[in-house]
Amino acid sequence: MTTSTFTVTGMTCGHCVASVTEEVSEVSGVTDVQVDLESGRMVVTGDADASAVQAAVAEAGYDAAPA
Amino acid sequence: MTTSTFTVTGMTCGHCVASVTEEVSEVSGVTDVQVDLESGRMVVTGDADASAVQAAVAEAGYDAAPA
Repeated sequence: MTTSTFTVTGMTCGHCVASVTEEVSEVSGVTDVQVDLESGRMVVTGDADASAVQAAVAEAGYDAAPA
Repeated sequence: MTTSTFTVTGMTCGHCVASVTEEVSEVSGVTDVQVDLESGRMVVTGDADASAVQAAVAEAGYDAAPA
Protein backbone atom coordinates (compact mmCIF):
# COMPACT_ATOMS: atom_id res chain seq x y z
CA MET A 1 0.00 0.00 0.00
CA THR A 2 1.32 3.44 -0.90
CA THR A 3 1.43 6.19 1.68
CA SER A 4 2.01 9.88 1.10
CA THR A 5 2.94 12.34 3.81
CA PHE A 6 1.88 15.96 3.92
CA THR A 7 2.31 18.84 6.31
CA VAL A 8 -0.97 20.55 7.11
CA THR A 9 -0.88 24.06 8.52
CA GLY A 10 -3.57 26.05 10.29
CA MET A 11 -5.16 23.35 12.42
CA THR A 12 -5.71 24.43 16.02
CA CYS A 13 -7.84 21.73 17.64
CA GLY A 14 -9.37 18.32 17.34
CA HIS A 15 -12.29 19.72 15.37
CA CYS A 16 -9.82 20.89 12.73
CA VAL A 17 -8.28 17.43 12.60
CA ALA A 18 -11.74 15.91 12.19
CA SER A 19 -12.58 18.29 9.34
CA VAL A 20 -9.36 17.53 7.46
CA THR A 21 -9.72 13.79 8.04
CA GLU A 22 -13.30 13.83 6.79
CA GLU A 23 -12.54 15.76 3.62
CA VAL A 24 -9.42 13.78 2.70
CA SER A 25 -11.19 10.48 3.41
CA GLU A 26 -13.64 11.33 0.64
CA VAL A 27 -10.91 11.66 -2.02
CA SER A 28 -10.97 8.89 -4.61
CA GLY A 29 -8.27 6.31 -3.93
CA VAL A 30 -7.76 7.20 -0.27
CA THR A 31 -8.11 4.21 2.07
CA ASP A 32 -6.82 5.74 5.31
CA VAL A 33 -5.92 9.15 6.73
CA GLN A 34 -3.98 9.82 9.91
CA VAL A 35 -3.55 13.40 11.07
CA ASP A 36 -1.43 14.58 13.99
CA LEU A 37 -2.55 17.93 15.35
CA GLU A 38 0.68 19.02 17.02
CA SER A 39 3.04 18.30 14.16
CA GLY A 40 0.55 18.89 11.36
CA ARG A 41 1.77 15.64 9.85
CA MET A 42 -0.81 13.85 7.71
CA VAL A 43 -0.21 10.35 6.33
CA VAL A 44 -2.54 9.36 3.52
CA THR A 45 -2.77 5.71 2.49
CA GLY A 46 -3.90 4.74 -1.00
CA ASP A 47 -3.25 5.78 -4.57
CA ALA A 48 -4.95 9.17 -4.55
CA ASP A 49 -3.53 12.04 -6.54
CA ALA A 50 -1.53 14.41 -4.33
CA SER A 51 -3.19 17.45 -5.85
CA ALA A 52 -6.63 16.00 -5.06
CA VAL A 53 -5.55 15.46 -1.45
CA GLN A 54 -4.28 19.02 -1.21
CA ALA A 55 -7.53 20.30 -2.72
CA ALA A 56 -9.50 18.39 -0.09
CA VAL A 57 -7.45 19.94 2.70
CA ALA A 58 -8.06 23.36 1.16
CA GLU A 59 -11.78 22.55 1.05
CA ALA A 60 -11.62 21.96 4.80
CA GLY A 61 -10.04 25.39 5.18
CA TYR A 62 -6.36 24.54 5.66
CA ASP A 63 -3.18 24.21 3.63
CA ALA A 64 -1.26 21.04 2.84
CA ALA A 65 2.19 20.65 1.33
CA PRO A 66 4.09 17.46 0.53
CA ALA A 67 6.28 16.66 3.54
CA MET B 1 -35.35 39.67 27.56
CA THR B 2 -32.67 38.66 29.99
CA THR B 3 -29.09 38.20 28.88
CA SER B 4 -26.25 36.59 30.83
CA THR B 5 -22.59 36.97 29.97
CA PHE B 6 -19.96 34.30 30.47
CA THR B 7 -16.29 33.95 29.71
CA VAL B 8 -15.49 30.72 27.89
CA THR B 9 -11.93 29.45 27.92
CA GLY B 10 -10.22 26.87 25.72
CA MET B 11 -11.74 27.69 22.36
CA THR B 12 -9.20 27.88 19.55
CA CYS B 13 -11.15 28.09 16.30
CA GLY B 14 -14.50 28.50 14.65
CA HIS B 15 -15.27 24.82 15.13
CA CYS B 16 -14.98 25.34 18.89
CA VAL B 17 -17.35 28.30 18.70
CA ALA B 18 -19.82 26.18 16.72
CA SER B 19 -19.65 23.37 19.29
CA VAL B 20 -20.26 25.71 22.22
CA THR B 21 -23.06 27.51 20.40
CA GLU B 22 -24.76 24.24 19.52
CA GLU B 23 -24.63 22.83 23.06
CA VAL B 24 -25.75 26.03 24.78
CA SER B 25 -28.55 26.53 22.25
CA GLU B 26 -30.06 23.25 23.42
CA VAL B 27 -30.34 24.39 27.05
CA SER B 28 -33.92 24.90 28.19
CA GLY B 29 -34.82 28.60 28.25
CA VAL B 30 -32.06 29.74 25.91
CA THR B 31 -33.33 31.75 22.95
CA ASP B 32 -30.03 33.04 21.54
CA VAL B 33 -26.30 32.48 21.97
CA GLN B 34 -23.53 34.74 20.70
CA VAL B 35 -19.92 33.61 21.14
CA ASP B 36 -16.82 35.65 20.32
CA LEU B 37 -13.77 33.49 19.72
CA GLU B 38 -11.06 36.05 20.42
CA SER B 39 -12.42 37.35 23.70
CA GLY B 40 -14.17 34.17 24.79
CA ARG B 41 -17.18 36.31 25.61
CA MET B 42 -20.50 34.48 25.40
CA VAL B 43 -23.82 36.28 25.68
CA VAL B 44 -26.79 34.03 26.36
CA THR B 45 -30.32 35.36 25.89
CA GLY B 46 -33.24 33.83 27.75
CA ASP B 47 -34.09 32.66 31.24
CA ALA B 48 -31.84 29.58 31.40
CA ASP B 49 -30.18 28.59 34.63
CA ALA B 50 -26.54 29.69 34.68
CA SER B 51 -25.39 26.33 35.96
CA ALA B 52 -27.15 24.60 33.07
CA VAL B 53 -25.41 26.90 30.64
CA GLN B 54 -22.05 26.17 32.24
CA ALA B 55 -22.77 22.43 32.12
CA ALA B 56 -23.53 22.71 28.40
CA VAL B 57 -20.22 24.45 27.76
CA ALA B 58 -18.47 21.71 29.73
CA GLU B 59 -20.31 19.15 27.61
CA ALA B 60 -18.78 20.78 24.53
CA GLY B 61 -15.38 20.41 26.16
CA TYR B 62 -14.69 23.94 27.44
CA ASP B 63 -15.04 25.96 30.62
CA ALA B 64 -17.39 28.86 31.27
CA ALA B 65 -17.46 31.31 34.14
CA PRO B 66 -19.85 34.20 34.76
CA ALA B 67 -18.25 37.34 33.30
